[in-house]
Amino acid sequence: TVGQKTFTNDRIFAPYYVYKGKAAFSAEPIPPKFCKVDSGIRVKRQGFIMMTFSPSVGERKYDWQRKQMFALSPTEVGSLLALGPNGSCDFFHDPAMQTSNAGQVRKSLSIKPSPDGTGYFMSLSVTNNITKTNDRFSVPVTSAEFAVMRTSFSFALPHIMGWDRYSSQPPVFKEENAT
Amino acid sequence: TVGQKTFTNDRIFAPYYVYKGKAAFSAEPIPPKFCKVDSGIRVKRQGFIMMTFSPSVGERKYDWQRKQMFALSPTEVGSLLALGPNGSCDFFHDPAMQTSNAGQVRKSLSIKPSPDGTGYFMSLSVTNNITKTNDRFSVPVTSAEFAVMRTSFSFALPHIMGWDRYSSQPPVFKEENAT
Amino acid sequence: TVGQKTFTNDRIFAPYYVYKGKAAFSAEPIPPKFCKVDSGIRVKRQGFIMMTFSPSVGERKYDWQRKQMFALSPTEVGSLLALGPNGSCDFFHDPAMQTSNAGQVRKSLSIKPSPDGTGYFMSLSVTNNITKTNDRFSVPVTSAEFAVMRTSFSFALPHIMGWDRYSSQPPVFKEENAT
Amino acid sequence: TVGQKTFTNDRIFAPYYVYKGKAAFSAEPIPPKFCKVDSGIRVKRQGFIMMTFSPSVGERKYDWQRKQMFALSPTEVGSLLALGPNGSCDFFHDPAMQTSNAGQVRKSLSIKPSPDGTGYFMSLSVTNNITKTNDRFSVPVTSAEFAVMRTSFSFALPHIMGWDRYSSQPPVFKEENAT
Repeated sequence: TVGQKTFTNDRIFAPYYVYKGKAAFSAEPIPPKFCKVDSGIRVKRQGFIMMTFSPSVGERKYDWQRKQMFALSPTEVGSLLALGPNGSCDFFHDPAMQTSNAGQVRKSLSIKPSPDGTGYFMSLSVTNNITKTNDRFSVPVTSAEFAVMRTSFSFALPHIMGWDRYSSQPPVFKEENAT
Repeated sequence: TVGQKTFTNDRIFAPYYVYKGKAAFSAEPIPPKFCKVDSGIRVKRQGFIMMTFSPSVGERKYDWQRKQMFALSPTEVGSLLALGPNGSCDFFHDPAMQTSNAGQVRKSLSIKPSPDGTGYFMSLSVTNNITKTNDRFSVPVTSAEFAVMRTSFSFALPHIMGWDRYSSQPPVFKEENAT
Repeated sequence: TVGQKTFTNDRIFAPYYVYKGKAAFSAEPIPPKFCKVDSGIRVKRQGFIMMTFSPSVGERKYDWQRKQMFALSPTEVGSLLALGPNGSCDFFHDPAMQTSNAGQVRKSLSIKPSPDGTGYFMSLSVTNNITKTNDRFSVPVTSAEFAVMRTSFSFALPHIMGWDRYSSQPPVFKEENAT
Repeated sequence: TVGQKTFTNDRIFAPYYVYKGKAAFSAEPIPPKFCKVDSGIRVKRQGFIMMTFSPSVGERKYDWQRKQMFALSPTEVGSLLALGPNGSCDFFHDPAMQTSNAGQVRKSLSIKPSPDGTGYFMSLSVTNNITKTNDRFSVPVTSAEFAVMRTSFSFALPHIMGWDRYSSQPPVFKEENAT
């Protein structure tokens, strides 16, 4: 009954879903990418929390083919965690930033307090100048759902930064005579 | 003295008990269920925190045969975590929801501040129309006991969502030439 | 460079020390004890955070032979975590409780806000009616030291409850046809 | 697809960077050093969070050759975690403390609220009497960046204290007849 720890190396899919009348979103952490360096391994690209929005197409039905995504960086996650009861924040992303297509697609995610002060509105707007489309999703989030996000995003933040790797190393020993 | 990590694959039983004069309850996390998908594994059913109440049948004696259970979903756990000093919340479950027996058994769990403002009352009511019974349990929870629940439920929340699995995967490497 | 996780099975000693003019204390988590049951393993005795106090016997010298100990239960840890800026708490232990020696040794640990409101006093009093001794230790704790205790005790609480074991199990799979 | 957990034993490099106009800093946890004792392993030297500052030498360019470092002890991390909205703290280190070179190099790290109350200034000053130099770095930190530091430092604190080792041990069993 006591054996060795076994783990799956497969990718994990454990999104947190919030389904509401006009749209739904899911949140899911994506780990950082590492590269090898002489003395160990180094974070090459930070992880993020992927927010995916979809429009409602009927009662409890959502069209995930028409999904739009927004990747929250560690500092954007910090912004969400720092949000006070009536605070709000806005993030702007350009998926083609620093390429020749810069400015063609603009994404913005906003978090605003709901009028009754009990929760927030999470809204994603995607303006695509190439396809001449403008998608907008708005999902009301209760204080309970926001508490789940706050707690799970706090848990995930060290992970997407790569800091959880520090705890999975064997203990380091100090030589006897060193000071 | 330094060897390989060994773990038990057996089920863990580590309930947190609160024993009071008229009833007791225990709280225990139940992990999510996964299924295999092409590219990895996916949460099939979310986990929960199982609350189990039992009536007192004498000094420090409780009749666990007459227990009643209530499974807190991740969002219900979020509701408990978001509770302010004088906040309260109520959850309603129907164990036979979306079956032909819907409405026959109704469960409600309520958390209300105690009159002196130092803690909460956790109360479970189970009305069974088939057996014509109505069980009601109420357990006063001190601020210290609630702090244990708040801290341990915060810890357990990412686990019942399946998010702790993200940290148990090997580091992902980025190819040299990729951007 | 990528190998298998190796761990030590040896006991870990990682006390957090607070050294002050008249006394010092250390805090250290002690894991729960488990027993085997038919369907898995169960917590048999909860863990605790061991507080150890020693008197000062000169500049930066402490006599750990004259130490006195106090084991904080999970709920007592919760009491410390719930402490507001001007809150205080007192715990009373009888090491011989429910034996014929009950009442011979009485221990009390108190946490009180410091007069200037910037920290706390941690005080341990041990009255031994058999040896006719009364040991008393009082250690001023800064807000920084208390923040270390609050953060590390929050981390350790699920561990001394046995809840960290839930995360070290392999994922549970749900059969295809089950609902 | 389900195999054994594999880990790297290589050193991990996962600094959190804050880049601003005149300077940048990174923060990175450094684990404690252990030594073997008869009954297990003991923390020999506590870990810390290493803060590394570098001056800007052009747009988005920093001269890491001219970096200065400051190692935050667990209690200094606690001081940062305890910081209220308008709080500030100052830490002073002498890298040659208790040697014949004491007092030659003085380092101070200060955290002060920004005038508009939305963030902090992290400033490092290093005065070297031998080289007759005085380096000073000041980096404005937004509330979002400070929330990342607060969350990741809270995560790292038990790690640099060695407390995460307690969770990586196999469960301890209690003999049947013991009380």
